[in-house]
Amino acid sequence: MTETLAPGAVIGILGGGQLGRMLSVAAARLGLKTHIYEPGAHPPAGDVAHAVTTAAYEDHAALARFAASVDVITYEFENIPTEALDVLEAHRPIRPGREALRISQDRLTEKAWANGLGVATAPFADITDLASLEQALARIGTPAILKTRRFGYDGKGQVRIDDPAQARAALAELAGAPAILEGFVPFQREVSVIAARGQDGQVAAYDPGENVHKGGILRTTTIPARLTNAQRTDAVLLAGCLLNALDYVGVMGVELFVTPGGLILNEIAPRVHNSGHWTQNGCAVDQFEQHVRAVAGWPLGDGGRHSDVVMENLIGDDVTRVPDLARQPDTALHLYGKAEVKAGRKMGHVNRILRA
Amino acid sequence: MTETLAPGAVIGILGGGQLGRMLSVAAARLGLKTHIYEPGAHPPAGDVAHAVTTAAYEDHAALARFAASVDVITYEFENIPTEALDVLEAHRPIRPGREALRISQDRLTEKAWANGLGVATAPFADITDLASLEQALARIGTPAILKTRRFGYDGKGQVRIDDPAQARAALAELAGAPAILEGFVPFQREVSVIAARGQDGQVAAYDPGENVHKGGILRTTTIPARLTNAQRTDAVLLAGCLLNALDYVGVMGVELFVTPGGLILNEIAPRVHNSGHWTQNGCAVDQFEQHVRAVAGWPLGDGGRHSDVVMENLIGDDVTRVPDLARQPDTALHLYGKAEVKAGRKMGHVNRILRA
Repeated sequence: MTETLAPGAVIGILGGGQLGRMLSVAAARLGLKTHIYEPGAHPPAGDVAHAVTTAAYEDHAALARFAASVDVITYEFENIPTEALDVLEAHRPIRPGREALRISQDRLTEKAWANGLGVATAPFADITDLASLEQALARIGTPAILKTRRFGYDGKGQVRIDDPAQARAALAELAGAPAILEGFVPFQREVSVIAARGQDGQVAAYDPGENVHKGGILRTTTIPARLTNAQRTDAVLLAGCLLNALDYVGVMGVELFVTPGGLILNEIAPRVHNSGHWTQNGCAVDQFEQHVRAVAGWPLGDGGRHSDVVMENLIGDDVTRVPDLARQPDTALHLYGKAEVKAGRKMGHVNRILRA
Repeated sequence: MTETLAPGAVIGILGGGQLGRMLSVAAARLGLKTHIYEPGAHPPAGDVAHAVTTAAYEDHAALARFAASVDVITYEFENIPTEALDVLEAHRPIRPGREALRISQDRLTEKAWANGLGVATAPFADITDLASLEQALARIGTPAILKTRRFGYDGKGQVRIDDPAQARAALAELAGAPAILEGFVPFQREVSVIAARGQDGQVAAYDPGENVHKGGILRTTTIPARLTNAQRTDAVLLAGCLLNALDYVGVMGVELFVTPGGLILNEIAPRVHNSGHWTQNGCAVDQFEQHVRAVAGWPLGDGGRHSDVVMENLIGDDVTRVPDLARQPDTALHLYGKAEVKAGRKMGHVNRILRA
């Protein structure tokens, strides 16, 4: 059943980073308020939110107060402790739901789940010790990547293995964390589908974007991606299949590898996604508003776009280019208000609008 | 000299309505914070601001604390008491400057100033009593409009006079407020130029929009306006002339009547303007960001647009159409988060994007 939030209702957002910040602005555009829950002080989202709670995810009293003060709860990142979710869900609905979090929090669970739906992934194996890693390397071959099952992002918690002799050292780097070995996929390009599903089961997807990563961090997304019509259709259908299987509510980022043999799922993110930032300047309804609409029980935007866009992340010292970027025509700046510049830190992004 | 605000700097905004709200979001997009000063409780801008001061414009201590907490001060409305401005300006710069406020706060001053720059206006006369009104009606003719010199907006403080015999009654309606009589201009259409001037004197204008008012309230703005190339150039040059004459910093709304004899200035607004809301979905840099850029000493956007747009205000009960509007493609909703619906109250607007 669809439950529509009225103007003035409050959306609780777990996480106060740039995604929470842009979700908060989108909610305001629909006349909704936001309440940010974030352990760190001075979160970027706090500058554009109705309310902020600064507390740890282990502070169950603070979580309960937060939940009681909002109408629905969503999140900007998937690695929320299960106990915190239990406390929150006792008070208010969490959208997208727990199953999407359970699956996306664990690379092994995620890949097995996708395969079960008939969605191809890289070859993978559960790694529990040196013996299982050696066995997996023998089956999957090299190069391969050993990854922690949980808490990985932007290339962290990953070790490349080019030779089976590196197995012991690679395992040592992960320091005993539960792990998965993934085979290399010889892909032509990486694309992602930003798709959404409403409370009524309506599904809408933006046209896939083509992503370029460097050092494990997204650098650019270009719309449209270089795909055949068949690939484009496959990508959107694949995303729809995942959303429906989860009875999902909200926006999901679906990262895919394009190979000569077809599309291969890299990973899903049960939230708005960096590769969907281009929608802010390409569409009437951007991914942030789309997520808010879904979570709030509003009708979804149709995913149509008025302009092609190239999105570029501003990472670390890239922000020194802002004065120059501010002078370029058809260039939309989005800065996150982070006080401290660090190497590898996402400080903002620019959307270059390509006029039709 | 240009003084550039760095990320994290705070812009103080006088007024917490929808214009302050959208200015606040634009500032955040550039990594800047905002502090709203607003006498009324629960201002719309408060949901997306870093800080809010709730205090009267007569509270000089609160004004001084507010000014000391920000880096620069701007405003979303022009009728700020002079004494409040004196207090604020002792602490921080106010942009746009005092001269723009002085002129735009008084219809008589504004028209005399424009004529002095060679810019045509409707015929007008200073009205101090019945004798001066009768004399003015004899010169200007009917129909004419008697307006308060100050504090008019959305058609308030105005009385139409169709016959000189109505002079006494019209004057009584204004209850002794200083007044101006304005002759009717037989115009073909109303357009407005949203123009900006930076601290370095750079001027940029958006393409003029064509406005339709009903009952004194703006209903729609359509881009592009139906203008000849010569009229379009004249409109932009006229706006530039006004900005330069004031050594202006920020965005100005310049409302013009298009007549067979040329352009006639209706009025200026020394701030972002309702007829510029279309820029949110037509341009990489919208009028709100443009204003923030000027006030913060950043380079201006060039005013280019990627899409044509029709902006429609949602006034009073128009908000009941939101569920339907939310389903329409290429339609961007902007709701102001106002709790109470009142007749004539601006509750939001929609931008319909016309794909090229």
